Amino acid sequence: MSVTVVGSIAYDAVKTPFGERERMLGGAATHFALAGSFFDEVRVVGPVGGDFTDEDFAVLRTRGTITDDVEVIPDGKTFFWAGEYGWDLNSRETLDTQLNVFEHFEPKLSEPARDCDVLFLANIQPTLQLDVLDQCHGPRWTALDSMNLWIDIARDDLVKVVERVDCLVLNDAEIRQLTNRPSVVRAARELLSWGPSAVVAKQGEYGAALITDEGFFALPAYPLERVIDPTGAGDTFAGGLAGYVAAHPGDPVNHELLTRAIAYGTALASYNVEEFGTERVARLTADEVSERVNDLAQMTSFSTVPLALRD
Amino acid sequence: MSVTVVGSIAYDAVKTPFGERERMLGGAATHFALAGSFFDEVRVVGPVGGDFTDEDFAVLRTRGTITDDVEVIPDGKTFFWAGEYGWDLNSRETLDTQLNVFEHFEPKLSEPARDCDVLFLANIQPTLQLDVLDQCHGPRWTALDSMNLWIDIARDDLVKVVERVDCLVLNDAEIRQLTNRPSVVRAARELLSWGPSAVVAKQGEYGAALITDEGFFALPAYPLERVIDPTGAGDTFAGGLAGYVAAHPGDPVNHELLTRAIAYGTALASYNVEEFGTERVARLTADEVSERVNDLAQMTSFSTVPLALRD
Repeated sequence: MSVTVVGSIAYDAVKTPFGERERMLGGAATHFALAGSFFDEVRVVGPVGGDFTDEDFAVLRTRGTITDDVEVIPDGKTFFWAGEYGWDLNSRETLDTQLNVFEHFEPKLSEPARDCDVLFLANIQPTLQLDVLDQCHGPRWTALDSMNLWIDIARDDLVKVVERVDCLVLNDAEIRQLTNRPSVVRAARELLSWGPSAVVAKQGEYGAALITDEGFFALPAYPLERVIDPTGAGDTFAGGLAGYVAAHPGDPVNHELLTRAIAYGTALASYNVEEFGTERVARLTADEVSERVNDLAQMTSFSTVPLALRD
Repeated sequence: MSVTVVGSIAYDAVKTPFGERERMLGGAATHFALAGSFFDEVRVVGPVGGDFTDEDFAVLRTRGTITDDVEVIPDGKTFFWAGEYGWDLNSRETLDTQLNVFEHFEPKLSEPARDCDVLFLANIQPTLQLDVLDQCHGPRWTALDSMNLWIDIARDDLVKVVERVDCLVLNDAEIRQLTNRPSVVRAARELLSWGPSAVVAKQGEYGAALITDEGFFALPAYPLERVIDPTGAGDTFAGGLAGYVAAHPGDPVNHELLTRAIAYGTALASYNVEEFGTERVARLTADEVSERVNDLAQMTSFSTVPLALRD
C-alpha cells in the first residue's frame, strides 16, 4: 500500500513578522510527503529543475518517501514562490510566482505510483489532476486540494475532478466561491451532492471541519503561543489526513475514521507552523505527533452533565 | 441567587442578505437576559426611553427576568443601532448609532441587583463598568465584554475593570488589540496575568475558545445551513455562559465548569442567529437547548485509538 501525491515541489522565499528565509524547500507535495510519511510509504510526483539540491532531495526522502517520480529537468528551474505575511499571520501577499518547470509539466506516473492505495491531488491545474486520476489504477481513496485561481479560470475542469474524488480538502473561502453559497455547511452539502463523500474545510487558525452525509465534526487548531510561518500548514494537514487513511487499509473511510484522520492532520500542521518551511516537521518524531493528538482530544472534550433549565 | 447584567437595551435596524427589520428589540442586556434566564433569575440594569413599549418589556421579562432596574426616561429615546451585514455575514457596517438615553446614563443599582451572585458587565463605557462593580456587594463571579472603541479611547479605564473581574468575554480582534499581541493564545495568557482567571475568546462562525491557567478549550459554533441575523449572538453566548455559572452556586468556577458553560452559551447563540433579533430565543425551549449541547459534544469528539507511526 502507498500514497501518491501530485503537486508542487518548490523553493519559497517567505517573510513573516518573526523572520525570513530567502530560499527554502517548500511546495505542497513536499509538505504533504513530510507529514504523510509518518503513516505509509509516500511517492511524490512533480517536476524540479537542475537547481534542486541533493540536500533537498534528502529532505523529501525523510521517512522513506520515494522520489522516483520526481522529474528532474536539468536545464529548468524549480518552481519559486515568494510571499509576505501580515502582523497576525492571517493575511499574506504573494510577491512573486515563477512557474518555471511547472509551466510545461505533464505528469507521467510510474507503475508503482499508479498502483497507489491513496491518491492526493494537491493544488495544481485541474486538467493535470484529471490526467493523474486517469493514469491511476483506481485508488481506494482520492482527495484533492485547489485554489481560487482555478475556480476563477478553470471551474468546469475543476468540477469534473470534484465529481471523481472521494474527498475535498479546501479552505472556507474556496468552498464558498466554488458553490457561490455563503454558508460553509450548506455549501459543503452541495459539494457532497456532486460526488465526493466528504468535505474537509480548512479554517486556518480555527482548525478544520468535516462534513459528510453522516454528520458534522470540527476540531480547533492546536493552540500555539507563537506561530513562525504558516506556509505549508494546509498541505501538512492534508498529508496527515490522507496518511491516516492509508494507514487503515482494511477500514471503511467513513465519518468516524476521518475525524481521527483530521486530528492527526491538525497535530502535524501545528508543528509545521512552529518554524520556517519544512524545518520543524523534518525532525519531528512519532511520539510528538501522538502527544498533540491526545492533547487535542482533551482540549475539545466537555462533559454533558444533565441540567434542569428554567423553561 | 441571581444574575445582574448591565448593558444596552436597544432598538435595532438590521439588514442581512436574508431580510431586514426596521425596528426590533435588541441590545446586549436584552440578548444576555433571554439566554441567562434559562439558568437563573436575571436582573437587567439599563436605560430605555419613553418610546420603549410594553410588548418589549414583556419580552425582556421572558422566563422571569426582573426589570425593576430598567430606568425609564419618559422624555428620552431608547438607544438605537442600525447595521447591515455582508454576503457571508462575516462583515458588518454600522449605519447609525443614536446613544439617546445612554448618553447620560448613570447606573444606580437596587439592593437586590447589588446582591447578585453573578455580575455581567456588557459592552458599555469602562467607567460605568467600574461604577457598577463598586456598587455590587462582591459577586461570586464577574465577567465583562467590551469593544474596540473603548480600547481606542478609554484603554486605561478598561484595564482597571479587567484587573477586577474573573472572566473576559471578548472577540479575537479585541484580545489582540488590547494586548497588542498577534497570537490570541499568547495575548490571553497575558490578560490572565492582569487579574482574571479566565479569558473566553469569541470567534464568530468558528465558535469560542477558553484560556485559563489550567489549560485551553475550544468549541466550534453549532453548524447551521442558514444564518439569518448574527446580531446579539455574542451577548446570547455570554448569557448562557454566565447563566450556567450562576446555576452552579456550590461549584468552583474552574476550567472544567467553564467548558460546560461555553457549550450552553454556544447552543443558545446558535438559536439566536436563526432568526432576527430576539425572535428565536424568545420562544426557545429548555429541551431545544439541551439537544444542541448534546449534539455539540458528539460533533467534537473523536477517539484516540493508538496508532504506531513510522519514525
